[in-house]
Amino acid sequence: MKLTKMHGLGNDFVFFTDEAGATKDYTELAQRLCHRQTGIGADGLIVVVPSEVADTRMRIINADGSEAEMCGNGIRCFAKYVYERGLVAKETFTIETLAGIMEPTLHINNGKVEQVTVNMGKPHFAAKDIPMKADVPMVKHFPVEVAGQTYEVSSVLLGVPHTEVFVEDVTKVPLTTLGPALERHPLFPQGTNVNFVEVVDATHIKVRTWERGAGATLACGTGCCSSVVMAHENGFTGRDVDVAVYLGTLHIRYAEDGTVFMTGPAAEVFETELAI
Amino acid sequence: MKLTKMHGLGNDFVFFTDEAGATKDYTELAQRLCHRQTGIGADGLIVVVPSEVADTRMRIINADGSEAEMCGNGIRCFAKYVYERGLVAKETFTIETLAGIMEPTLHINNGKVEQVTVNMGKPHFAAKDIPMKADVPMVKHFPVEVAGQTYEVSSVLLGVPHTEVFVEDVTKVPLTTLGPALERHPLFPQGTNVNFVEVVDATHIKVRTWERGAGATLACGTGCCSSVVMAHENGFTGRDVDVAVYLGTLHIRYAEDGTVFMTGPAAEVFETELAI
Repeated sequence: MKLTKMHGLGNDFVFFTDEAGATKDYTELAQRLCHRQTGIGADGLIVVVPSEVADTRMRIINADGSEAEMCGNGIRCFAKYVYERGLVAKETFTIETLAGIMEPTLHINNGKVEQVTVNMGKPHFAAKDIPMKADVPMVKHFPVEVAGQTYEVSSVLLGVPHTEVFVEDVTKVPLTTLGPALERHPLFPQGTNVNFVEVVDATHIKVRTWERGAGATLACGTGCCSSVVMAHENGFTGRDVDVAVYLGTLHIRYAEDGTVFMTGPAAEVFETELAI
Repeated sequence: MKLTKMHGLGNDFVFFTDEAGATKDYTELAQRLCHRQTGIGADGLIVVVPSEVADTRMRIINADGSEAEMCGNGIRCFAKYVYERGLVAKETFTIETLAGIMEPTLHINNGKVEQVTVNMGKPHFAAKDIPMKADVPMVKHFPVEVAGQTYEVSSVLLGVPHTEVFVEDVTKVPLTTLGPALERHPLFPQGTNVNFVEVVDATHIKVRTWERGAGATLACGTGCCSSVVMAHENGFTGRDVDVAVYLGTLHIRYAEDGTVFMTGPAAEVFETELAI
């Protein structure tokens, strides 16, 4: 079987196409292929399967074998993969996911997909929707105590719960201690992703994310989106913002109607052929 | 260029052949190919180059770009790679390395190399040779204080300095705290690898290693060898011992004349073709 390794800002995936993959159990295969030393090595397995309601369908199985609903970095890679292999011939098309139908737009140069824009939906601000044990219509400057210190946070639901801590210097953040402490803080009954955000100017921010259940990752798509939403809602930035992460940049547009558009790169690393 | 990913008990490498590679600088290429997300992903790059003094020559460049002298897991993969590609047609042959000429023996089944035996040389016991700031001809039951607690260690030089701590249950060892504390203890002017060893019976031990400069790894070939040497010198085992590590088993023979032979598996994961 032909396998392709791709990555979106360092979030990496093993791809293949399976015409008969609509209901297969990929648990064991994902664990085996994603193993960093004995397999291809990746954060997840993405399988292209046929859809009855969209142009194509993405199934994404994490390295631990659990199936995920959606992934911002993964869907950019997916869009590049299906277009460059001729599985889809349009520059804007629909992808069925467990989180609903996504509609990516490709930015093509010499037949190669360089950037992909994805409609990430609209944020939900009410504390009860995030969910967060607070009674406010929007979570801004909200005091949270961790280990005797008080941090002012913003929180928002964008696909998953996100909490922003605005800081002076994102490189000096105690990511691996403050991240998990906020992730599992009693204020958040379902936990929260934690984004440490440095505002450079009205169109540039830097973000480091502690992902719920995954820890420190190289880039979190929805984390960048929610960081721009809350930077704007706090009056720190405009609605079009470049977000610098460890391996590159995402451009986020937070439209007047509340819809969030993420534009970012997708890259193919290599192809191989394995009996699986 | 054709690239092959291989692993020996989870210690993984990207291989290629370069007829003109005797003196090339592979620093940048190793860093790029070994990157887990944006490259093939591996602990190191191994290049097969011609030798004037042996049947073939192994160059091994760590993921950080530094060139290593030798690697027990790597040389088993190297032996499988060159034999199965017809670069060497003998079942025992010589490999030039920066640590001298190594002589692997292949164990072949249906044309495939399943296990490789490597002569790992002889241990040096005197404290001054390890080096260790102690004045004993052999380091056994040597008290070392770490954070107010005293541990009895054995130490030996086998390629690099190794220190063994014999424990009841290797799964309960505080590897990431006690490991680095011993690695950089003032007793060891050049640092030391640290092996936590559980003796199961006279022919079976379990080992978890904290590698000097690399931290917790899935398997350390010389760590397993030195663990058997010191288990035998302490009277815990015989001279033929199976060593269980995270992903499998190494068989170590500590011969009467002091020579240590390591036998273990080597596996090919996949091949790919990249313009590099």
